[in-house]
Amino acid sequence: MDAYWRAANYLSVGQIYLLDNPLLRQPLQLAHIKPRLLGHWGTTPGLNFIYVHMNRLIRQRDLSMIYIAGPGHGGPAVVANTWLEGSYSELYSDISQDEEGMRRLFRQFSFPGGIPSHAAPETPGSIHEGGELGYALFHAYGAVFDNPDLVACCVVGDGEAETGPLAASWHSNKFLNPRTDGAVLPILHLNGYKIANPTVLARISHSELECLFVGYGYKPYFVEGEDPASMHQLMAAAVDHAMDQISDIQRQARAGGEVQRPRWPMIILRSPKGWTGPKEVDGKKSEGYWRSHQVPFSDMEKPEHLRLLEDWMLSYLPRELFDAEGRLRPELAALAPTGERRMGANPHANGGVLLHDLRLPDFRDYAVPVPTPGGVRAESTRAMGEFLRDVMHRNPHNFRVFGPDETASNRLGALFEATDRRWMAERLADDDHLGVDGRVMEILSEHACEGWLEGYLLTGRHGLFSCYEAFIHIIDSMFNQHAKWLKVCSEIPWRRPIASLNILLTSHVWRQDHNGFSHQDPGFIDHVVNKKADIIRVYLPPDANTLLYVTDECLKSRNLVNVIVAGKQLERQWLDMPAAINHASAGIGMWEWACSDQSGEPDIVLAAAGDVPTLEMLAAIDILRQIVPALKIRFINVVDLMTLQPQEEHPHGLSDTEFISLFRADTPILFAYHGYPWLIHRLTYRRSNHAHLHVRGYKEEGTTTTPFDMVVLNHLDRFNLVMDVANQVPKLQSQAAHIKQQMRDMLNRHTQYIHEHGEDMPEIRNWQWPEARE
Amino acid sequence: MDAYWRAANYLSVGQIYLLDNPLLRQPLQLAHIKPRLLGHWGTTPGLNFIYVHMNRLIRQRDLSMIYIAGPGHGGPAVVANTWLEGSYSELYSDISQDEEGMRRLFRQFSFPGGIPSHAAPETPGSIHEGGELGYALFHAYGAVFDNPDLVACCVVGDGEAETGPLAASWHSNKFLNPRTDGAVLPILHLNGYKIANPTVLARISHSELECLFVGYGYKPYFVEGEDPASMHQLMAAAVDHAMDQISDIQRQARAGGEVQRPRWPMIILRSPKGWTGPKEVDGKKSEGYWRSHQVPFSDMEKPEHLRLLEDWMLSYLPRELFDAEGRLRPELAALAPTGERRMGANPHANGGVLLHDLRLPDFRDYAVPVPTPGGVRAESTRAMGEFLRDVMHRNPHNFRVFGPDETASNRLGALFEATDRRWMAERLADDDHLGVDGRVMEILSEHACEGWLEGYLLTGRHGLFSCYEAFIHIIDSMFNQHAKWLKVCSEIPWRRPIASLNILLTSHVWRQDHNGFSHQDPGFIDHVVNKKADIIRVYLPPDANTLLYVTDECLKSRNLVNVIVAGKQLERQWLDMPAAINHASAGIGMWEWACSDQSGEPDIVLAAAGDVPTLEMLAAIDILRQIVPALKIRFINVVDLMTLQPQEEHPHGLSDTEFISLFRADTPILFAYHGYPWLIHRLTYRRSNHAHLHVRGYKEEGTTTTPFDMVVLNHLDRFNLVMDVANQVPKLQSQAAHIKQQMRDMLNRHTQYIHEHGEDMPEIRNWQWPEARE
Repeated sequence: MDAYWRAANYLSVGQIYLLDNPLLRQPLQLAHIKPRLLGHWGTTPGLNFIYVHMNRLIRQRDLSMIYIAGPGHGGPAVVANTWLEGSYSELYSDISQDEEGMRRLFRQFSFPGGIPSHAAPETPGSIHEGGELGYALFHAYGAVFDNPDLVACCVVGDGEAETGPLAASWHSNKFLNPRTDGAVLPILHLNGYKIANPTVLARISHSELECLFVGYGYKPYFVEGEDPASMHQLMAAAVDHAMDQISDIQRQARAGGEVQRPRWPMIILRSPKGWTGPKEVDGKKSEGYWRSHQVPFSDMEKPEHLRLLEDWMLSYLPRELFDAEGRLRPELAALAPTGERRMGANPHANGGVLLHDLRLPDFRDYAVPVPTPGGVRAESTRAMGEFLRDVMHRNPHNFRVFGPDETASNRLGALFEATDRRWMAERLADDDHLGVDGRVMEILSEHACEGWLEGYLLTGRHGLFSCYEAFIHIIDSMFNQHAKWLKVCSEIPWRRPIASLNILLTSHVWRQDHNGFSHQDPGFIDHVVNKKADIIRVYLPPDANTLLYVTDECLKSRNLVNVIVAGKQLERQWLDMPAAINHASAGIGMWEWACSDQSGEPDIVLAAAGDVPTLEMLAAIDILRQIVPALKIRFINVVDLMTLQPQEEHPHGLSDTEFISLFRADTPILFAYHGYPWLIHRLTYRRSNHAHLHVRGYKEEGTTTTPFDMVVLNHLDRFNLVMDVANQVPKLQSQAAHIKQQMRDMLNRHTQYIHEHGEDMPEIRNWQWPEARE
Repeated sequence: MDAYWRAANYLSVGQIYLLDNPLLRQPLQLAHIKPRLLGHWGTTPGLNFIYVHMNRLIRQRDLSMIYIAGPGHGGPAVVANTWLEGSYSELYSDISQDEEGMRRLFRQFSFPGGIPSHAAPETPGSIHEGGELGYALFHAYGAVFDNPDLVACCVVGDGEAETGPLAASWHSNKFLNPRTDGAVLPILHLNGYKIANPTVLARISHSELECLFVGYGYKPYFVEGEDPASMHQLMAAAVDHAMDQISDIQRQARAGGEVQRPRWPMIILRSPKGWTGPKEVDGKKSEGYWRSHQVPFSDMEKPEHLRLLEDWMLSYLPRELFDAEGRLRPELAALAPTGERRMGANPHANGGVLLHDLRLPDFRDYAVPVPTPGGVRAESTRAMGEFLRDVMHRNPHNFRVFGPDETASNRLGALFEATDRRWMAERLADDDHLGVDGRVMEILSEHACEGWLEGYLLTGRHGLFSCYEAFIHIIDSMFNQHAKWLKVCSEIPWRRPIASLNILLTSHVWRQDHNGFSHQDPGFIDHVVNKKADIIRVYLPPDANTLLYVTDECLKSRNLVNVIVAGKQLERQWLDMPAAINHASAGIGMWEWACSDQSGEPDIVLAAAGDVPTLEMLAAIDILRQIVPALKIRFINVVDLMTLQPQEEHPHGLSDTEFISLFRADTPILFAYHGYPWLIHRLTYRRSNHAHLHVRGYKEEGTTTTPFDMVVLNHLDRFNLVMDVANQVPKLQSQAAHIKQQMRDMLNRHTQYIHEHGEDMPEIRNWQWPEARE
């Protein structure tokens, strides 16, 4: 095993340094060295060490295990090991298991046209790039949920351990059921240093460290030292203990009877940073110090550096490891698992391979009856919750719903008719829908919800994350990483499509009646649309039936991030199910019943995206019909925001012809939008009629106040919209001053009422679309 | 004290429910009740309980203490207590300490035109709104850094404790020096429930909980129960113990000798959610359960609910608490601290009051000599580091630099000539610039850096946060909250301006040579510009001297979030200091020496923002001069991105006249931008010449590759820019095909070289501006 480890270390150093002469058959020369030395050595020998020990465990116990390298920038380690076990060459046949393959393996690393430096999508067996730190353990837990036979070995670097998300993720053990879920074997790798600093957990006392992990609910096993021979013994013993304990826990839980939260094992591995690397470089400490974090030394023009590298690589005794053809010697190769037991070939790490379509009920069965537009009210997400309940019923092993304590508050409570909230911590008699088998995952950590869900999806399952709109920004950066992962995967033939990441944003900016300004931020959409168009979708269904359609579509989709923004409050419903299907499947369209331009060109195009803007715009149309009945209005509702982008920019984008046909070439357009108004400009600036577009939206004004006051503060209310129309339509020019005065009077009356009574005027609260009034 | 607590509870319930009849002189009627019941009762009695006990501690020991209510949605508690102690009425004279004042106090809460439901900027004594959860403890530690006489009492809710940032923030004790910093008294408030769920920490065993906090390095004191009388005794004893211990720690540390990391005390308070509220509502459990999280009951038309409320409020015995005028009885009022010792009047919680200008060296003294544009190379941030070193020297008590382990990597290493990295954990002999008095705060947690800095600024000090550009997204949501805080503060007369939050983004998208795609994201700028224009500034200094100017400006500014994007790599320098001052103070301008339109109208305007785009654009101009020498080019560089916005939208925006004078009315514009190209469109879509604008920037393509390959992948390289010029300039039409072919050949040659040699061609790496070549 030590020889196997040396082989992995040798290959890791080779990837960082060598362009040629992979087996060091010739004396090392400058020409063999890469011109730019890139990569991270510091964590790599530790990752190799663990990988080798996991190989032994897998073989000995015939385990299905995946390897999550928290310090993903130790990419050379995972690449080296998958090459040694053969899974690499199976996917990349030009990187063969021989001298020429080894040369290419070395050359391609961090090389233009080659592979990135991380455990990226290109890396076999990886579901976790680890470029941004913090999410390794969440991904590991997500991967083993509902995978009772899977073990995720999760290496957590002591740098990563300082991040917030990682610090919280240890508590994931309160959500893991040993009967129906698999196991995570966390290995905290204390190599002591980050880029230029020691790490916190490496510099607290042994007893504090032990207490911390006991407090987190684990049984920690310590493996500490630097002498390889004794470290192999210690590590082997520790992983055997840990795996025995995991087996015991699982056996007990699966024997029947009540399931308790067990004390899961974890390993604390303390080994030198840059272990087995040069002790000193230019007289300065390297091994066991932060200087070995990246490339321990460069300036390869210096002959002493060239010699240092050669000595270092030869210290692994390559001739004992590889045969004359550059192949790993058979007695070493025999130490690796075979077939799908190899961690580089475990199908769970290429989740699309295992993905089954969800068994979906017909979303039409959950339709809210809408006899006439605006004639009834409903909570849109409540209808969605009923649909999700039955999705849950039909897919009891590969679908979960995640949220930070808000499933019920977001009106998805019907789910609890089908399942409970997952809870493995203490339970009390009066607990409400808490259970060890629950499939709704609630913890007050958006990072946890997102991280678990990502791990769950990446291993071939389905899910949905519901979140307050403002606080989804907490996972902006996690979204970035997942979107980047999907983008790269779509360019890798052997990566099979996985289920989309579905995010429901409810409790949105306009209805923070309890919470106010801190809870008002619709900017996640802006953030999302910066990512590759083939990966992202944004939906703003204006009512329950369009939401049902969109939910169904999202649950069927693959390799996307779908963002759905929909309110949870009791709101007017506009479309019956057939109309909703027509409308939402197009993604954008006219609502004929709200238009008055049937007999010719409209004087103005009024558009809305989002439930609250749709309501206000329709209320504005109602006023306009009364005060300027001759005005020809076209009303357009946008469900799929990406339809606004040019066709060349997004697959859902309307062609210019379609766009002009809807919005007309020379007609003023007033657009009421759910979020920051400039996003609509950013999406449409290339449209030839963009100059006619005026957008209202959230402009960062708000507090704890009434729903109508909120739209007034941001000039998105019906009265302000009518004033905008008066400003924009040439033929209203003569009446504009009068109309605006009328509207200002109305506004004042309402504002005064609100400030006096603390609630919106009844005529606002109870406003109905004219046809529904009759 | 119990009576005082009852008074606070009474006032809290009153704020949530009552419109009138504040002293319940008349039988309670529906007309006295607010039409919309908003607010969070659950956490409030606990917050009141702690506040009252802190009052005792302050009086007894003459402490300077601030109160950080992690569960900031328990706003009624802080408002009630500051009203009782008188600090509220001093700031809001209409909310007087009498019956009429009480009536207004009740009415204004969560009422249109009133105050928000949180411990918002409007709340006296608050530096922490707590709407978004996770940052209470970071703010508390930030507040006491360099405030040796300050104690921050920090209440952490058990919901908040589940978040990632909070879970990491306990480790802040490894960075607190008892000699020169103040103390934090964390109080983990286990009331057991979130919105609809129990909390994790309330459902693990007592021994696990204790272990966890011992592991975090604290000495936990438990206060558990529900009987008020005994709870008062327990709490008083616990806070006395804790405060004794804090005093001992500080006394010892300040007596001289070596400072060790002490085991700081913390309190775990386990009390029922909605404590002292109704036990049951409609036959369902309320007190001690999640149902009391928000408003425990509404539907006030029900007479039994009206009676329930009346009984509840009367259970506090208001007649014993308030006199006939509605004033707190004098014997109770005497329990509160006086003057600035009142937590609602502690000047640290209105940091601007204590703010001193930084003593700044002259930034001109750090100028990089630039004899001719492009004639020298320098690492821009290294020059900034030297400036910061001397800022640190001159301001040894009110300036700190924060970063996730990247200060040296970001070339700010000169700081370590002036100070160390702060480190209170174990130290080893070979540690590098680690010290208990260090003023550079490094931990691998962007949340920690941002949270500490916010706490530090909010209490009247100065600082800078340097971060990898991609990973600043980790704190998107914290930025949102701080920007919102600043926006509201600017509307509150008694809130004095504080130092700006300065964020340096280096290690930017274009130079992730080691890391690749996961580290490439320039979208924080997009995120920032969604916030109120008076609050945000974005600078992209193209070289060292402009960076120095901008740094100086940012350090002098107030109440802003300044984002500076500047590379750390060795790059060409363009402007000597006088030119840099001219240019950066305007924020945008022509670089005459790069222009060839002196004799008339330009054929094309070439603009650049950011160091790498500036380099590529100048290299493109070099090519254009050679292949189409007659082309009249104007080159504009943008330092202050907000100059592009219309004047009406941002205070730094150019007027339309200025804009047209620079960019011309009908001339094609090619803009090379550091980030996502559409941001430039979003900023300029109202400009009359926007239709002529073509922007190149980062379009989400990248991997681990060479610097030049990165710009090629995103079509921002010199050759693609020349092709764009050929496409855009009408008078080049006849030559366009030929020029484009030439450029494609060049590109192919370079790409081939890169893929063969793994580095950029020497002529790219060593390219110089023509005048510098001579």
